[in-house]
Amino acid sequence: MLIAVDAMGGDFAPEAVVGGVLAVARDVAGDIALVGPAERLEALLPRPRARPRNVRIVDAPQVIGMGEDPGRAVRSKPDSSLAVTVNLVRDGEADAAVSAGNSGAFMFLAQVRLRTMPGLQRPGIAVPLPGGGGPRILIDAGANVDCRPLHLAQFGMMGSIYAEHAWGCASPRVGLLSIGHEASKGDELTRAAHDLLRAAPLNFIGNVEGDQLFADGVDVVVADGFVGNVALKVTEGVGHTLLQFIKEALHSSPRYRLGAWLVRSALRQAMSKMDYANYGGALLLGVNGICVVGHGRSSARAVANAVRVAERAVLGGVRERMEEGLQRMAGLENGANSVGVSAG
Amino acid sequence: MLIAVDAMGGDFAPEAVVGGVLAVARDVAGDIALVGPAERLEALLPRPRARPRNVRIVDAPQVIGMGEDPGRAVRSKPDSSLAVTVNLVRDGEADAAVSAGNSGAFMFLAQVRLRTMPGLQRPGIAVPLPGGGGPRILIDAGANVDCRPLHLAQFGMMGSIYAEHAWGCASPRVGLLSIGHEASKGDELTRAAHDLLRAAPLNFIGNVEGDQLFADGVDVVVADGFVGNVALKVTEGVGHTLLQFIKEALHSSPRYRLGAWLVRSALRQAMSKMDYANYGGALLLGVNGICVVGHGRSSARAVANAVRVAERAVLGGVRERMEEGLQRMAGLENGANSVGVSAG
Repeated sequence: MLIAVDAMGGDFAPEAVVGGVLAVARDVAGDIALVGPAERLEALLPRPRARPRNVRIVDAPQVIGMGEDPGRAVRSKPDSSLAVTVNLVRDGEADAAVSAGNSGAFMFLAQVRLRTMPGLQRPGIAVPLPGGGGPRILIDAGANVDCRPLHLAQFGMMGSIYAEHAWGCASPRVGLLSIGHEASKGDELTRAAHDLLRAAPLNFIGNVEGDQLFADGVDVVVADGFVGNVALKVTEGVGHTLLQFIKEALHSSPRYRLGAWLVRSALRQAMSKMDYANYGGALLLGVNGICVVGHGRSSARAVANAVRVAERAVLGGVRERMEEGLQRMAGLENGANSVGVSAG
Repeated sequence: MLIAVDAMGGDFAPEAVVGGVLAVARDVAGDIALVGPAERLEALLPRPRARPRNVRIVDAPQVIGMGEDPGRAVRSKPDSSLAVTVNLVRDGEADAAVSAGNSGAFMFLAQVRLRTMPGLQRPGIAVPLPGGGGPRILIDAGANVDCRPLHLAQFGMMGSIYAEHAWGCASPRVGLLSIGHEASKGDELTRAAHDLLRAAPLNFIGNVEGDQLFADGVDVVVADGFVGNVALKVTEGVGHTLLQFIKEALHSSPRYRLGAWLVRSALRQAMSKMDYANYGGALLLGVNGICVVGHGRSSARAVANAVRVAERAVLGGVRERMEEGLQRMAGLENGANSVGVSAG
C-alpha cells in the first residue's frame, strides 16, 4: 500500500503535513509518499537514517494556493503537488490521495483524473462525525447541491459501505436527515429520497433530525450537500462558542480558576471528542480511488488522522465494495424517475 | 396589553405554564390570560388575594394533544385552549398568543384565524439563537420547506424588523445561510435569494456559513425552513452531547470531582447561554397578530421567557412595522420571477 500525501496542502503546510506524516508513519501498514518541492521537504525531514523507512518524497515543484480558482489552478499548474498526488492514484502507483489543500481543486482533479464510478451519478463527501459511541458518517458534507432523490439514495449506499468496511460497523443503520421522523416530513427532495432509500438494499431506519447527529441509534446520516455542509459548520460553531463561554466563566473568580486548574485536562478530553482533528478527514466517495479531503486548517494531528482514514479505506477495500454496492442498487435507478424530481 | 397563554400547551403543562406565568407576571407591562379548563387552572393558582393582579383565567374546556393531527384536532375541538388563545387575538381582545403546545395546530390556527399579512407570501418562524453578544435571529426555523427566493427575501425583511424593534438592534445585519461567502456559492434557491436580498432595502451583508450562527457579525440569519430547522436541531444536539462528555469526564477521578464541585455553577452559567429556555420562544412572523410558539419541552423558565418574547414584540410594534416593511419590499415581487424559480 502506498498513500500519497500532498505535502503543500493546508494552511499550515508543509510543516503540519510533514509533522503529521512523521507522527503516524510507523503505525501505518504501508508506505507514504510526501508530494511537493523535493528540496523544501528534504529540509523538513530528519536525516535519511533517522526518518521512518516507509516515508519517501515525490517531487512536485508547483503549489496550488488555498484561495485559487480550482479550474484555473489545475490547468495552469500541471505539476502541482496536488495534481501529482492525484496522478499517483490514477496511474496505479498509489492507493490513496490525501490533501488538506484547495478542496475545490482536489475534487475537480479527483473527478477528472480518477472519474466517477460507472453507475454512480455523483460522488459524495463522507465525514466521520465528532461525537461518542463509534463511527457516525455524514454524507454528503458539501460536494453537491441541488441533489436529486437518486443521489441521496446512492449516498446512503456509499455511506453504508464506508461505515461497514472502513469503520467495522455491522449492518449500518442509515438515516435520512430531515425535520421530523415521519416519512411525510421534510422537503420535496427528502420525501422522495425517503421512498427510494426504503426500497434500497440498505438497513434504512427512516428520517433522523439534526439533534440525532451525535446520538446513538444511527450510523450513516444522508443529506443533500448543502444541508450536510450547514450541519457540519453549525457543529463547529456551537463547539467553539461553548468552549469560549466555558473559558470565560472559568476565569470569572478565584474559586473557578482553582477548579479550572483541577479539571483542565478533563475538559480538554471532553472537548477533544468534538474536535474534527481527531476524526481525520473527509472521504470523497464514488471516484475510482481513495481521496481524503482534509480540513484546510489541519494540524499535524489532523493530517495524521487523515492518513489513518485513507489507510482504513484502503484496507477495508471500500472502493471494491462500492462497485458491488452500485450493482445491487442498479434496480433503483429506473424507479427513481417516477418518485418525483426536485430542483436541479 | 393582554397576552393570552395556552395553559395546556407543552409536555409539562399545565404546571410548567402556570409556574412560568406566575414567575414572570409581576415584570410584565400588561395582563396575562391563562387559557384552559378553569377549575383545573384555579387549583394550580394561589388563592385570589395572593396571586398577581394581572393574571386571570379564561375558560377553555378542551385540550389538543401534542401528537394530534393539527387539522383534525382544530376541527374537532373548537373550544380547545389553543383555539381560544388564538381567538382572543383574532377578536382584538389579546395582543399576543403564546403556546408551547402542538405547534402544527398553532400555526394552522394562526394562519386560518389571523391570516397572513397582505403582500406576504408565507409567514416564517423567527428564533432568537442561543449564543453570546446580543440578539441573533434565525428565520425561518421550520415553518416552510421548498421555499422560493422571494420567501427568503421576505424572511430577511421580517427578521430585520423583529431584531430592530423587539431586540433593539439598530440597522440589523442580515445574512443568508449558505455554504460559502461568495454570492455564487450555495444551491439554486440560495443563489437566487442572494440577488433578491441584495436588491432589498435591508442591511444585507451577504452569505454566512453555519459556524457564524453564533458569532458576532450578523444579526439576522435567513434560511429555508428545512435548513433552518436542521441548523437549530444540530445546535441542540451538539450542546447536549458536549454537556454529556463534560459530565462524564468530570466524574472520572477524585481530582476532577473536587474541581467540578468548585466550578459547577460556572459551567452551569456557560451552558445556560446555549439553552433555548433562556431565549423563550419562536415568533411566527407574518400573520396578523403576535404568536409565540414555545418549545414542546418548555420548562416554567422557558414559558416565562416566551411571555417576555411576546411582550417585546407587542411593545416594539413588530406587527405594525411589518406592514410598513412589506410595502417597502413590494417592488421586489415583480423582479422575483425573473431571478429564477426553485422547486416548490
